[in-house]
Amino acid sequence: MPRHRCTVYSESDYDDDDDNVTMRCLSCEDDYDPDDAGTCKECYDEANETEEEFKRQIQDLKSKVSFLTLASPLDAPSTTDLVLLPSGDSFSPSIPAHKAVLVSRSPVFRAMLENDMEESRSGTIKIADVSYDALRAFVNYLYTAEACLDNQMACNLLVLGEKYQVKHLKAYCEKYLISKLNWEKAIVNFAFAHQHNANQLQDAALAVIMENMDNLTKNEDYTELVETNPRLVVEIYEAYLAKQVNTAATLGL
Amino acid sequence: MPRHRCTVYSESDYDDDDDNVTMRCLSCEDDYDPDDAGTCKECYDEANETEEEFKRQIQDLKSKVSFLTLASPLDAPSTTDLVLLPSGDSFSPSIPAHKAVLVSRSPVFRAMLENDMEESRSGTIKIADVSYDALRAFVNYLYTAEACLDNQMACNLLVLGEKYQVKHLKAYCEKYLISKLNWEKAIVNFAFAHQHNANQLQDAALAVIMENMDNLTKNEDYTELVETNPRLVVEIYEAYLAKQVNTAATLGL
Repeated sequence: MPRHRCTVYSESDYDDDDDNVTMRCLSCEDDYDPDDAGTCKECYDEANETEEEFKRQIQDLKSKVSFLTLASPLDAPSTTDLVLLPSGDSFSPSIPAHKAVLVSRSPVFRAMLENDMEESRSGTIKIADVSYDALRAFVNYLYTAEACLDNQMACNLLVLGEKYQVKHLKAYCEKYLISKLNWEKAIVNFAFAHQHNANQLQDAALAVIMENMDNLTKNEDYTELVETNPRLVVEIYEAYLAKQVNTAATLGL
Repeated sequence: MPRHRCTVYSESDYDDDDDNVTMRCLSCEDDYDPDDAGTCKECYDEANETEEEFKRQIQDLKSKVSFLTLASPLDAPSTTDLVLLPSGDSFSPSIPAHKAVLVSRSPVFRAMLENDMEESRSGTIKIADVSYDALRAFVNYLYTAEACLDNQMACNLLVLGEKYQVKHLKAYCEKYLISKLNWEKAIVNFAFAHQHNANQLQDAALAVIMENMDNLTKNEDYTELVETNPRLVVEIYEAYLAKQVNTAATLGL
């Protein structure tokens, strides 16, 4: 990043002998040869202005995000008008929320609550196959667009994001899982992403698998996937074959 | 803004005669002299990476803003739990809203609604001295962080932003009014900003007045301000005097 310590270049800064012509970089203030020339002064100034403009935009957007973030209903439940219940866990407390927020964030909740369905009448939405902690994090995300993720939580929230069509949450979890991808997790993530229509994660996991084809059949997750979902294993091999054909065509073989 | 059409510089691009050494700018692709040198290639590449990173951040923040934006309660009033009423206008319809949103956006509404005050019990908040249109725009802003402004609406919303301590709205209106400032509006804006503690607008208006001191006493708004708020006129003269003293000191007079 340019550090903007402007040094005005003067004629005396370069040598008369043209083999040794040097300029001083306005950004890092080091001397450089014509071979390492980057930009003229005008473009440097323009780029600085652009950078300042980007910084202002980022500041404005952050302040807008902060304004639009709602307090979690768990911190201030007094005005809530429904509860969510992790249906498999009868000992967990319910989680209070606002219809208006759920309707605004998820087309699935909208359909549930704006039509005269049971959830709308009873003010209780049962959520199947979810722990209290995951449901709590899910509701919090609907209010704040923030979640504290680890691998398990990212998977749980991605599933909820897919089920209730909260695209922003799904993308947030996919991004996290992609950032943590490695060969050890690649096959499990590939299968998981396929199951929940997380295309970006699936592509990223497939790319990691392609880089490790030599070790594929030795991987335990692979052996398990052959048993549970052989069609998906076929997809891996088809991608591998297509890549090999492409490479061969590029090399003119 | 750099246009990133990278041209690799080659030795032949500069002349052997050192009086005519030229480099090619990697951004605008024009040749430049050492006198117009901006940055070295490394800093140019770094600046490009920074720019890409800023663009990604802006994209992420915009998507977060879009996720956090709520539907206006005027479009979907079914789950609202209170109404706002422009108290001076008995023929206007009331405006539905959600306690949770009002509480989240304004400490004044929070105090009103979280303590057992009349507004909380009745579910009606009367707003004095405001038109239906301004109140509607105000409520919309609390849900969306957006408003369609002209000069009058910006003033109305700034007043509401100040009264209900919605800082984000107040700053938004100040920014708009500052962007439209000119000599014709400067005195009115200066007095308005003073009345509503809009410090940035007041400073900006004062700066415009300072640039037009020759015309000050001929201005009708000035004549009116002398009548209505002479203390504020004194502030203008004090600022003018301080500036003159400073200028004299700088020039060593």
